Amino acid sequence: MLSPSLEDYLEEIYNLSKINRLIRVRDIGNRLNVSSPSVVKALIKLNKEGYVKYKKYHEILLTKKGERLGALLVRRNKILQEFLEVINSNCNKEKEAESMEHYLSSPTIKSIENLVEFMREEREVTEKFKRYCDSVGEFHWSEEIDKNAEIKE
Amino acid sequence: MLSPSLEDYLEEIYNLSKINRLIRVRDIGNRLNVSSPSVVKALIKLNKEGYVKYKKYHEILLTKKGERLGALLVRRNKILQEFLEVINSNCNKEKEAESMEHYLSSPTIKSIENLVEFMREEREVTEKFKRYCDSVGEFHWSEEIDKNAEIKE
Repeated sequence: MLSPSLEDYLEEIYNLSKINRLIRVRDIGNRLNVSSPSVVKALIKLNKEGYVKYKKYHEILLTKKGERLGALLVRRNKILQEFLEVINSNCNKEKEAESMEHYLSSPTIKSIENLVEFMREEREVTEKFKRYCDSVGEFHWSEEIDKNAEIKE
Repeated sequence: MLSPSLEDYLEEIYNLSKINRLIRVRDIGNRLNVSSPSVVKALIKLNKEGYVKYKKYHEILLTKKGERLGALLVRRNKILQEFLEVINSNCNKEKEAESMEHYLSSPTIKSIENLVEFMREEREVTEKFKRYCDSVGEFHWSEEIDKNAEIKE
């Protein structure tokens, strides 16, 4: 697979390609909060691997392979955000999906998508689960893990 | 929070403390597949932060704080393995839980635990979901993401 960082680049290039006619280095950088030289480095790698067409002073284009993978990466991110919605996680869904997406295996992504679709079809189950969540107290033991001060390696 | 790596050390020290009377550097190293000098480095950090008592040529001991956090880390790992079981993920559950645990926020861990407990109580829902999973084809689009050759950053 692509490195997590290159996956993020391709995902954003794909998103930009759907909203803008022109994909610009600066726009990619803004979306990922990185500098233009970093974007250029990533573009050179993605170009080398056949996901984008990139040449200085030329238009940035997604290849068919890049378009295909970009669409899958965006779909994976969307499924994870939907999953966090379905299980009623009170987290920052965008950020959480972003950190989950690179670490889950495809069998788990598949199962998570199954769960999301199952819960969508079974409205009664979804409602029952929601009531179950509401009945559980606010505090969770896992918060205590976060409270342990960060120790750098 | 502790760094992912130090969390892994503490988790294994806790596990060892439950099965052996003596916690040894070599046993920790074997469990995590790391060298003894790496274990010693981690022990020095965990000692400094009050999770273990460690001094060369002395017994390694968990402090109360270390015992408490170790138990929570082990519990988090167990919940994630149970979650993968509940959603019928055909992955290596031990390995997957290991990579998930450090990246999920506590609201998501909480929701995942809710889901696991809800599915445990609602046997009918669990059965229905299992049938739903069986009805879905084997191949999943996310496998295509894995097939893209790894490109190092």
